[in-house]
Amino acid sequence: MKAEKLRKFEYIFHPRTVAVIGASNDDGFSQALMGTKLRDNLFLVNPKHKELHGKRCYPSILDIEGGIDYVVIAVPTLLVPKVLAECIEKGVKAVHVYTAGFSETGLEERKTLEDEVKEIARGKISLIGPNCMGVCCPRSGLAFIPDSSTEEGPVGVISQSGTFAVEFLSIGKLRNIRFSKVISYGNAINLDCPDFLEYLAHDSKTEVIALYMEGTRNGERLKAAMTEAARLKPVLALKGGVTEHGHRAASSHTGSLAGSPEIWSSLFRQARVIQVEDFDELLDTTLALSCAPLPSGKGTAIITNSGGFSVLETDLCVKAGLEVPQFTKETIAELRKMVPLAGTGINNPLDAWPIYYNMPGTTGTLADAIKTLSHDKNIHSIVLHFDEVRYLRHVFGEATENYLKELVEIMVQGCRYARDEMGRTVMICVSLDAYTEDEEDRSYHLLAKKAFEGERFPVYPSLGASIKALSNLYRYKAQCRNP
Amino acid sequence: MKAEKLRKFEYIFHPRTVAVIGASNDDGFSQALMGTKLRDNLFLVNPKHKELHGKRCYPSILDIEGGIDYVVIAVPTLLVPKVLAECIEKGVKAVHVYTAGFSETGLEERKTLEDEVKEIARGKISLIGPNCMGVCCPRSGLAFIPDSSTEEGPVGVISQSGTFAVEFLSIGKLRNIRFSKVISYGNAINLDCPDFLEYLAHDSKTEVIALYMEGTRNGERLKAAMTEAARLKPVLALKGGVTEHGHRAASSHTGSLAGSPEIWSSLFRQARVIQVEDFDELLDTTLALSCAPLPSGKGTAIITNSGGFSVLETDLCVKAGLEVPQFTKETIAELRKMVPLAGTGINNPLDAWPIYYNMPGTTGTLADAIKTLSHDKNIHSIVLHFDEVRYLRHVFGEATENYLKELVEIMVQGCRYARDEMGRTVMICVSLDAYTEDEEDRSYHLLAKKAFEGERFPVYPSLGASIKALSNLYRYKAQCRNP
Repeated sequence: MKAEKLRKFEYIFHPRTVAVIGASNDDGFSQALMGTKLRDNLFLVNPKHKELHGKRCYPSILDIEGGIDYVVIAVPTLLVPKVLAECIEKGVKAVHVYTAGFSETGLEERKTLEDEVKEIARGKISLIGPNCMGVCCPRSGLAFIPDSSTEEGPVGVISQSGTFAVEFLSIGKLRNIRFSKVISYGNAINLDCPDFLEYLAHDSKTEVIALYMEGTRNGERLKAAMTEAARLKPVLALKGGVTEHGHRAASSHTGSLAGSPEIWSSLFRQARVIQVEDFDELLDTTLALSCAPLPSGKGTAIITNSGGFSVLETDLCVKAGLEVPQFTKETIAELRKMVPLAGTGINNPLDAWPIYYNMPGTTGTLADAIKTLSHDKNIHSIVLHFDEVRYLRHVFGEATENYLKELVEIMVQGCRYARDEMGRTVMICVSLDAYTEDEEDRSYHLLAKKAFEGERFPVYPSLGASIKALSNLYRYKAQCRNP
Repeated sequence: MKAEKLRKFEYIFHPRTVAVIGASNDDGFSQALMGTKLRDNLFLVNPKHKELHGKRCYPSILDIEGGIDYVVIAVPTLLVPKVLAECIEKGVKAVHVYTAGFSETGLEERKTLEDEVKEIARGKISLIGPNCMGVCCPRSGLAFIPDSSTEEGPVGVISQSGTFAVEFLSIGKLRNIRFSKVISYGNAINLDCPDFLEYLAHDSKTEVIALYMEGTRNGERLKAAMTEAARLKPVLALKGGVTEHGHRAASSHTGSLAGSPEIWSSLFRQARVIQVEDFDELLDTTLALSCAPLPSGKGTAIITNSGGFSVLETDLCVKAGLEVPQFTKETIAELRKMVPLAGTGINNPLDAWPIYYNMPGTTGTLADAIKTLSHDKNIHSIVLHFDEVRYLRHVFGEATENYLKELVEIMVQGCRYARDEMGRTVMICVSLDAYTEDEEDRSYHLLAKKAFEGERFPVYPSLGASIKALSNLYRYKAQCRNP
């Protein structure tokens, strides 16, 4: 990427000063930015206010004394051209137009207005949007929702949709995904997806790129940018509007051309981008790519404390393109020493529930079982399914919390060995139902979740999610890294 | 069903007296039954105790004075034949053998032991199991987990796996599913899936049947029982072990023959049973069938407060075999009156977020919008997606709870009209992430969930789940009711 272009993006992602035009007591951008390190370099603009958030509020961007690198425009649609012109007059480097109501409405006069905005910006200023959330960059403090992640991380996100970006950031934070940059680019009348893709491809802070798009104005340019990015780091893509009706919904949402599903799939395949099917799959796979080593084969061991589900778990794996091979004789012999007979299966899936509860007759710990598995030559990945806290509480009563902490430490220890010493991909599922109201149960599950996250394991609330993410790691390894 | 057979099942589901052999201070069956109306007719047996749970504990079933209808056997594997013989001597009508460690171990001597148990029972006693959780029947008080649902309802469940039955019951309760009978039948050496299916088919308390099975010993009998049941009420089935590896896991789990996936799919199709792919789909579809009217066509309206997701939501619907048709001109004209322009889509999906927040410029309420939609001739079902409590909190601050209650009442009102006056199928999605730790947010989501549940709407934590369940309602209607 050329130095000039890089500098342009420096102003976007690491502005020295930021202004919000159309700030108010409750606009999300002011609130978000007041909570980050940019607070002291934030300027608020709105002729209706003298003061906001304890800061002076300026009638116009032109009234601010110093230079402004980056501006968020959140004014009524019809005011955007005027405000944008003032930003250019002020010498602002980059603007993000949050305001919607342009071509996406399908109305001719709004398309004309959008074209006008485009012309004003052309060659004079970098413009993100309109109709989008703009940029979040934990390193610089740029944010578009309050309390968003402030910890930096390896994940870069480029989303055509603002809501999508917000949800990805919010739910990603709950899942321990950490972000380098999150970009919502909306109608893309100036900077478009390929621009951001080129930037993230060469951004040393970004190790994984997740894309959400509904269409493009320049397929060839997009393909080139994806190909280049995917050559350098994993790129995942979710295409919205793959069905005829979705396609229609997409064009009313961001006003872009959508193309047939087959064209898009082929585009992603040629660019060596991993296409996923929905929001959850994108999120779950991004998490896995951001912290787990790639599996060296399809062989997956499932460790579960629920025999009833081991059958369905195996079905899930195989449907996802993985294998659940039998353990070697040596592995089985080792495991059989640890776990007694009744109701347990020393096989893959390992239905070794007594060892979860230190039941009479078991020897060794779950860590020993995990270590043993990790030596099996047929096994490249391990999915550890932790659930049944209810049963733990039943067995241990008051002592549950202490026992659980011990058990979790044991599991983490085994998983660390499998990953760090044996190079296995380890995925964790801590099953939790969204609607549960047993707060004690919830707190135990969250305790386990955080212990695994503390050691940078990817943790999923459902087994289906963990297996799908694992299968995508394998797909990436097989299709994009060993072509 | 013949009177004699019916009487046999009466003893199983509505026993007058129950004993647990192998009771202890912490066995789940005693604990579960002590919490139900059977408590006073419960007898505990274990030679190691004189008293348990404040009740006298008997050395043997033979020491109990009165007659015993139903017995739970929870003793070590090798003691099962002796204890079973004593039950027969006592004149017990039905036993549930919880104990595992029989043919499912794959060991020849355990297979022989199982055959011995089978012979002892043959013609003398009804036997459920071994290696299973037995029976839960809220009406009589039979239960296999503490605090299970005590409210009766229309859903009957037959599961080969015990864990599956426990999870279905537990998570079903969180989802407002109410049960008539839940049966976990395990190795099925005496009573088998077709027996229970025949019973539930003719049970007036059961309106929907959910099956989980891993194999069968008698495909023809199973087919006949499924066909008969499906003629009378909706039957859903999940087959575990559909893949080669899953098949192997299944045979080690319950020791039954599994058959090829194609044979099973064809069996279900011929019997007019709706086959589903995983646990969640079974649960979600069961909920829908237990409370929603069947859709009269594929036309689905999506109401959302998130434009970014409306595209993906449409994709989800269409991939699931539904349609998201455009609204009629009349509907669009009506809706456009209610919702102002910028950033909203008066189209299907209806991205009418300002109306959620009483934004300036909106007229009418969300209830009016739902009512308008429900008159559209292209629309047979409505999926209402409620999320973004975060934004509600941002807009309303302290007043959020009161406003939310009002908004929920408005939504419920609109949905009731669409369902009860217009006969539309209405599915609700109250998005909630399992790992969220924002307790205020959780409480608001749960408040909305319960308000809809209070009016018997099916509520789902994810949009994918609500759409999949809706598509299965349509599948059932199209394939099984209008063949």
